[in-house]
Amino acid sequence: MIPSAAFSFDLGAADGRARAGLLRTPHGEVPTPAFMPVGTQATVKALSPRDLCEIGAGMILANTYHLYLRPGDERIARLGGLHAFMGWDGPILTDSGGFQVLSLAQRRAIDDDGVTFRSHVDGSEHRFTPEKAIAIQENLGADVIVCFDECAPANDYEYNVQALARTHAWAERCKAAHGRADQALFGIVQGGIFADLRARSARFLADLGFAGYAIGGLSVGESKQQMHEVLELLDGLLPPAQPRYLMGVGTPQDLVEGVARGVDMFDCVLPTRMARNGGVLTRTGRLNIRNARFADDPAPLEPGCTCYACANFSRAYLRHLNQANEILGHHLLTLHNLHLMLTVAQEIRAAVLAGRFEAYRQAFWERLRRSTS
Amino acid sequence: MIPSAAFSFDLGAADGRARAGLLRTPHGEVPTPAFMPVGTQATVKALSPRDLCEIGAGMILANTYHLYLRPGDERIARLGGLHAFMGWDGPILTDSGGFQVLSLAQRRAIDDDGVTFRSHVDGSEHRFTPEKAIAIQENLGADVIVCFDECAPANDYEYNVQALARTHAWAERCKAAHGRADQALFGIVQGGIFADLRARSARFLADLGFAGYAIGGLSVGESKQQMHEVLELLDGLLPPAQPRYLMGVGTPQDLVEGVARGVDMFDCVLPTRMARNGGVLTRTGRLNIRNARFADDPAPLEPGCTCYACANFSRAYLRHLNQANEILGHHLLTLHNLHLMLTVAQEIRAAVLAGRFEAYRQAFWERLRRSTS
Repeated sequence: MIPSAAFSFDLGAADGRARAGLLRTPHGEVPTPAFMPVGTQATVKALSPRDLCEIGAGMILANTYHLYLRPGDERIARLGGLHAFMGWDGPILTDSGGFQVLSLAQRRAIDDDGVTFRSHVDGSEHRFTPEKAIAIQENLGADVIVCFDECAPANDYEYNVQALARTHAWAERCKAAHGRADQALFGIVQGGIFADLRARSARFLADLGFAGYAIGGLSVGESKQQMHEVLELLDGLLPPAQPRYLMGVGTPQDLVEGVARGVDMFDCVLPTRMARNGGVLTRTGRLNIRNARFADDPAPLEPGCTCYACANFSRAYLRHLNQANEILGHHLLTLHNLHLMLTVAQEIRAAVLAGRFEAYRQAFWERLRRSTS
Repeated sequence: MIPSAAFSFDLGAADGRARAGLLRTPHGEVPTPAFMPVGTQATVKALSPRDLCEIGAGMILANTYHLYLRPGDERIARLGGLHAFMGWDGPILTDSGGFQVLSLAQRRAIDDDGVTFRSHVDGSEHRFTPEKAIAIQENLGADVIVCFDECAPANDYEYNVQALARTHAWAERCKAAHGRADQALFGIVQGGIFADLRARSARFLADLGFAGYAIGGLSVGESKQQMHEVLELLDGLLPPAQPRYLMGVGTPQDLVEGVARGVDMFDCVLPTRMARNGGVLTRTGRLNIRNARFADDPAPLEPGCTCYACANFSRAYLRHLNQANEILGHHLLTLHNLHLMLTVAQEIRAAVLAGRFEAYRQAFWERLRRSTS
């Protein structure tokens, strides 16, 4: 591990498996548990950096695959790196692109050295290797970067055995390639739903030693119970002194249940993608603003919510914006959904620090149950 | 004219034909000359009300035709009127829908009593009469409302003769139907490019007496010179004590040349529509952010501009957002274009108040000429 004075993780408190920590990066501190809004193409869709500040975003995520293809990582480096490029002076994490080259790119061919694929933007051919994924992420200049990995279908054992061997070999190569002391490198634990593979992966990566551990390959079709079993297993195997980042998860419920199993960091496009389809996250469940019952509803999206959308606009207006396909509707619903995710993460942290996480968790689920009963 | 203590227009200064005034409305004062951002569907596309405040918007415009069809003027009235509905506490002007029923609606049939048309949204049949247009605008509750009119092709004399007779008859009916003392009613001068018809229209409407005079039927294909000749004619015929509002115009250049011919108020979708197509207005001309030459350009859209977009983002980033079809790109370009329009209007006003409008106008054109030579 490249030592970096600019990067540290202090575990402030634990309450059962739940943890509250502080991640220090060259671009500021990230209190954990943390939900990271996703800015795939160097913008969290429909929000500006000042909107993100306002709702309390700490670290945000950007996507190696997308930015490599467009506008190009070398261009971003010439323009001063990702922080300057997108006008976000806070912490950024870039994923490795491993998931995207296998899910978004076209005509991909994977071998032990890397992945050849065609761009989903223009069909041009490209190749990612572990070294290339690190080089791109160094050009982008995020505070936290992630190893290149192969994410296999969660319930295919043979595939996962093969993919895990590659993922581990690539983790070694990523670690060797990692050169910037101002960037922390996270390993990625894979192994699908299989306890033996997940355990092997956690031990292998912990032995290699990383500044943090991403947990990949979950929330891709397995059941919540299967995901929870993997998280519980990993909580006992991953080094406690480093942050654990559950990739691509989730919802307010996922945050609560992930933290209950030792997770510190989360990211997911769900709150932002839902918003652009009229979906609203609330503490009592979901609603879709397209529903005709909101046409005359003067109430805010979520009574009691302090976000700009809830403080100033009715469901009736937000439904109108959605019906009329107005950009402001996407903006306001995104603002609300992310505000909720960030607020829930803050509440969880406060509960852990106060030693009352279980009470928070019970109240959280009780509120959901009451509203749907 | 219904007297209203809540509404007045004070002509603070004149400098040649150029005027600087103050329009007082129940929702605040509007310094003139004023550019009114267009919020067709109860939202200025891609901006929130707080964005509009930030860039100094005074009065904004909303559209009777669109809001009648969706979400419905009666619904908006039940929800407290347009100001409450859209979260905009400043002044609002609604147009009459006359232009839209003839340009946007389908299978329209016009007679002396009104217009029957089919909705462009769902094909349903509707009918607007002068009384209906006023009733809708009373439901919406804007500070300034406008007479229902027939807008004819600018260079068709016979058509304009007929349309003008209807427009005048409808102006009388609108004035008779106008009932809310907290709304000011503007007449609309029509007559195409024809001096005799424009003069007839100005005299007829001035005799009827309105709180202000909209100038319709321009910027629809005639030359700039033809538009200017109409404005110069009307400046000598319209009552000087009421504001003149040139509908659907324009650009920074149009503002300067309109004010030079006695116009006080302007609206246009151009700055917002252009923005969503990558078009940028500047003091030295236009640029399109899609152009490949901006791909590596670290400069702001317009050096020296103080808007949020120019203060924080490069042309390279804004081009990337446009290429990636990101909402934030539409937002930031819209913010910049409207900021420029509002700033130019403020500068013109200051110049008129200081008695140096001609110097401002000369400098404005000289800057444009230098940049394109």
